[in-house]
Amino acid sequence: MALKVVIVGGVAAGPKVASRIVRLCPEAQVTLFEMGEFLSYAGCGLPYYISGVVKEQKELMSTPVGVVRDPVFFQNVKNVKICNHTEVTAIDRQNKKVSARNLKDNTTCEVAYDKLVLATGASSFVPPIEGTKLQHVYTLHGVEDAEGIKASFKERSAQNVTIVGGGLIGIEMAEAFAEMGARVTVVEAMDQILTFLDWEMALQVVKHLNAKGVKVLTGTKVSALVGNGSVEKVITDKGEIPSEIAIIAVGVRPSSSLAKAAGLEVGKGGGIVVNDKMQTSDPDIFAAGDCVEMTNMVTGKPCYVPLGSTANKQGRVAADNICGSGRDRFPGVLGTAICKVFDFAVGATGLSEVRAKAEGYDVITVLTPAPDKAHFYPTAKTVMLKLVVDKATRRLLGMQGVGPGDADKRIDVAATAITAKMTVDDIANLDLAYAPPFAPAMDNIITAANIARNKLDGIFESVTPMEVKAMLDAGQDIFLLDVRTPDEYNAARIPGGVLIPLGKVRTSLDKIPHDKPVIAFCKISLRGYEAALILKANGYTNVKVMDGGVVMWPYGLEN
Amino acid sequence: MALKVVIVGGVAAGPKVASRIVRLCPEAQVTLFEMGEFLSYAGCGLPYYISGVVKEQKELMSTPVGVVRDPVFFQNVKNVKICNHTEVTAIDRQNKKVSARNLKDNTTCEVAYDKLVLATGASSFVPPIEGTKLQHVYTLHGVEDAEGIKASFKERSAQNVTIVGGGLIGIEMAEAFAEMGARVTVVEAMDQILTFLDWEMALQVVKHLNAKGVKVLTGTKVSALVGNGSVEKVITDKGEIPSEIAIIAVGVRPSSSLAKAAGLEVGKGGGIVVNDKMQTSDPDIFAAGDCVEMTNMVTGKPCYVPLGSTANKQGRVAADNICGSGRDRFPGVLGTAICKVFDFAVGATGLSEVRAKAEGYDVITVLTPAPDKAHFYPTAKTVMLKLVVDKATRRLLGMQGVGPGDADKRIDVAATAITAKMTVDDIANLDLAYAPPFAPAMDNIITAANIARNKLDGIFESVTPMEVKAMLDAGQDIFLLDVRTPDEYNAARIPGGVLIPLGKVRTSLDKIPHDKPVIAFCKISLRGYEAALILKANGYTNVKVMDGGVVMWPYGLEN
Repeated sequence: MALKVVIVGGVAAGPKVASRIVRLCPEAQVTLFEMGEFLSYAGCGLPYYISGVVKEQKELMSTPVGVVRDPVFFQNVKNVKICNHTEVTAIDRQNKKVSARNLKDNTTCEVAYDKLVLATGASSFVPPIEGTKLQHVYTLHGVEDAEGIKASFKERSAQNVTIVGGGLIGIEMAEAFAEMGARVTVVEAMDQILTFLDWEMALQVVKHLNAKGVKVLTGTKVSALVGNGSVEKVITDKGEIPSEIAIIAVGVRPSSSLAKAAGLEVGKGGGIVVNDKMQTSDPDIFAAGDCVEMTNMVTGKPCYVPLGSTANKQGRVAADNICGSGRDRFPGVLGTAICKVFDFAVGATGLSEVRAKAEGYDVITVLTPAPDKAHFYPTAKTVMLKLVVDKATRRLLGMQGVGPGDADKRIDVAATAITAKMTVDDIANLDLAYAPPFAPAMDNIITAANIARNKLDGIFESVTPMEVKAMLDAGQDIFLLDVRTPDEYNAARIPGGVLIPLGKVRTSLDKIPHDKPVIAFCKISLRGYEAALILKANGYTNVKVMDGGVVMWPYGLEN
Repeated sequence: MALKVVIVGGVAAGPKVASRIVRLCPEAQVTLFEMGEFLSYAGCGLPYYISGVVKEQKELMSTPVGVVRDPVFFQNVKNVKICNHTEVTAIDRQNKKVSARNLKDNTTCEVAYDKLVLATGASSFVPPIEGTKLQHVYTLHGVEDAEGIKASFKERSAQNVTIVGGGLIGIEMAEAFAEMGARVTVVEAMDQILTFLDWEMALQVVKHLNAKGVKVLTGTKVSALVGNGSVEKVITDKGEIPSEIAIIAVGVRPSSSLAKAAGLEVGKGGGIVVNDKMQTSDPDIFAAGDCVEMTNMVTGKPCYVPLGSTANKQGRVAADNICGSGRDRFPGVLGTAICKVFDFAVGATGLSEVRAKAEGYDVITVLTPAPDKAHFYPTAKTVMLKLVVDKATRRLLGMQGVGPGDADKRIDVAATAITAKMTVDDIANLDLAYAPPFAPAMDNIITAANIARNKLDGIFESVTPMEVKAMLDAGQDIFLLDVRTPDEYNAARIPGGVLIPLGKVRTSLDKIPHDKPVIAFCKISLRGYEAALILKANGYTNVKVMDGGVVMWPYGLEN
């Protein structure tokens, strides 16, 4: 008897499982149910379809050579039976069959399985506030939402768009609408956007959003959406925002009600619990993609980071354990995330500082802005890296990268290094590819790792810009030593800084007091570090370097 | 008594050692000797200075914020004494002092050391052929060469430039001259350029060079350069090439004569032998940079890969072991290399297939061309990856990347993974950063790792394009099944291929013979793989997939 496999869900993990199963086991009878019309589309591409960067809807559901992945394709090429517009309503685990209903003609059917795969995805969370059902209010869940948003934008000649929620999708949608010419406001209840970043890194993104005309209101709660049929404004605890379109992007929740109803184990966050074979608490039922709970590989604890990349990997593992070698294991995730924010790449992997501290790690951090290519190469652009390093083991726990330069490359190296449990000592000696058009001779991540080593070894004593700001605000008597050039100083400076260019520090010691804390910095604090060393060599005992320099100062500058 | 450190060589490793020593030990007396005028310049940037991509010489010797690293800078900022235009002529190990001669005024001096660091670099090899001393014949070693080449180009209104040697520097110089408008010919004695690549990957680079107007003659030996005072032509065993400028770029040799004369151990390739503290056979003498022999971390054997990135890392290790914690170790290199060739990134890390086989590894290889971003994202460009994987351990031994897409990112991930001794199974589940503007949902290296796993597990049987060509040339009776679309087929096809688009394979089995080997392929051989699986499921027993498809076919196509 041929193996009967039923798959519930046709967007990312589901089609991957189906394709892989028929490759491993060509005689398997594979049936895939999908509630919607569309199969195997790139949900992550929707913001780019809305903005017009991606021209055609079908590009999102085509193979790289342009073949549309529709039911006919799955039947002819893959020998997979597709039932779209069909909802699976119940799982009968005892008799190993599922019940389904066609949403178009309301017919029902039952299909038996040897192995069942749940790839039911996630759904957008809609907060319990008034007005979310007004016209031109959207979440961004599927292709239909994207089409609706595009149509609304035209129909309303929308000038004002409000995004409720400053997470990944919210920020990508902010960019999309700004590119389309709208006045965009992002409203976020928490005190920062993009919580995979630490606060000061997120603030760099806000600065860039502001520079591109996007308004960001953090610490602001939306209480209602109001309008007469169509949304007209968004009401917050800090005022009203006129809005012809509102996007609700406050997060997604795993779609696990079918699993729950069948008595499968579900985690606290609502994700289906699976082992590293992607097997649920019922050994004949597997689950993969946005509906499952994952394991964070740094903490070993459950987490929920729904991404198309993870769904694909999990789908392969599930298929392999259903009818392949049974050797493939899904090890978990690092919570790696990235998004394009206009000219910035914004990404992170592993633990943020806040998260690492909450997990009980004693960490040091590094803020390093540096060019992503040899600094003399004309296409070089800045990447701001933040490293989070465990003091006890010297291991890299997490890294964040923000800026116009190639942050994605460094994030991927960090993700690989964290997976391999590398220390900053290991990372500092990695043989990364060097030529001026691709990287500095000391790659950004190597420089950052070396600064981390200097800190761990006690030869680089630093304070963060936030600590300096707190000292200044508290009226603490510190000497803020700016060792940049006069030109740099005159262009923009940190309030309270005293200019003594690095080359003049040795001959200006009489101007630098011994009796108060000296905090040295420059543009990126490499010269600041040199200055601190000169002072220490000259008997100064209370000298620190401000991490990341003026570039990483997240507050206002004087000019 | 303050520690006395003498450093010989002021380009890359030397200044790094000096800077680090004064940071670790501010009271150290550091003296640095440099034969030339210039200090601490980016030798790897010279081709870009010649072509004008980098406008000013001083950019190559400035810090990222534009401060020129000259002797005054080193004295004022670093407290390092610089003696440039000064050659160290001998080392007296017994009395721990060096003798030096000023090349401008011929004065001599002796300087005592507690620790001596040799950072004498490398020199360009000039083959023993006639005419290398003609005017307008250059190697590219230092800033002076770059200035000479720029002057020659103007003075001769050079139309024809010949590059002798198809290594990294030769190819970078070919690009530079082509960008300047010259007709460029690269002459290489071996049967391929860029030997960090395997033959078929190097051929992809040659195709691109040809498309940009650069002529590449492999398997061609230069016998002489001729001219009347100035070079006029380059004579090869296959004809003469008119040349107003000739660049000799056949490799560099470690400058180790000073070390040899002092009785220090020197390796077969001429590099100074050092341990992982960068200590020579004399414990008070360290060496770093292009003058030392390195260890290949995959094979554990000595190698010689002179690069500015490595020099910087080694300099830090040497300094740390002279006066720091003494904990820093240099683990070796992977032979990572990269260069820009017009619109292509061309790189490699670890072992090539040829090298791995020579080392006795039983390997499988993968050729995967794929877009570097989500295929629907408009800036996506192709990267061709080649993986070399050890059959016994499933470990990645090496990777090569060529193409207009971001190969450098994947090379860096591979370098990190090889350092961590990752298997392709580990790599396939890496949590790399995914969003459409940065990567496909399954990153290129993950897809390549999955193909490698399929091959190791025997579920993807493949032949290389080179094997297919050999079968065709030998007149072997094979069925070459092209499963692309008719449009793709009509645009360009492999001679002998039979078109049956993938969607029609199941219904066209009568056209596909059972009695001879079937070799399926498409553009990149993903559809070719699907076709092979369909045939196997239908009783075909002799079916293989051609690796990399039409994109990786290194020979001519019909159209």
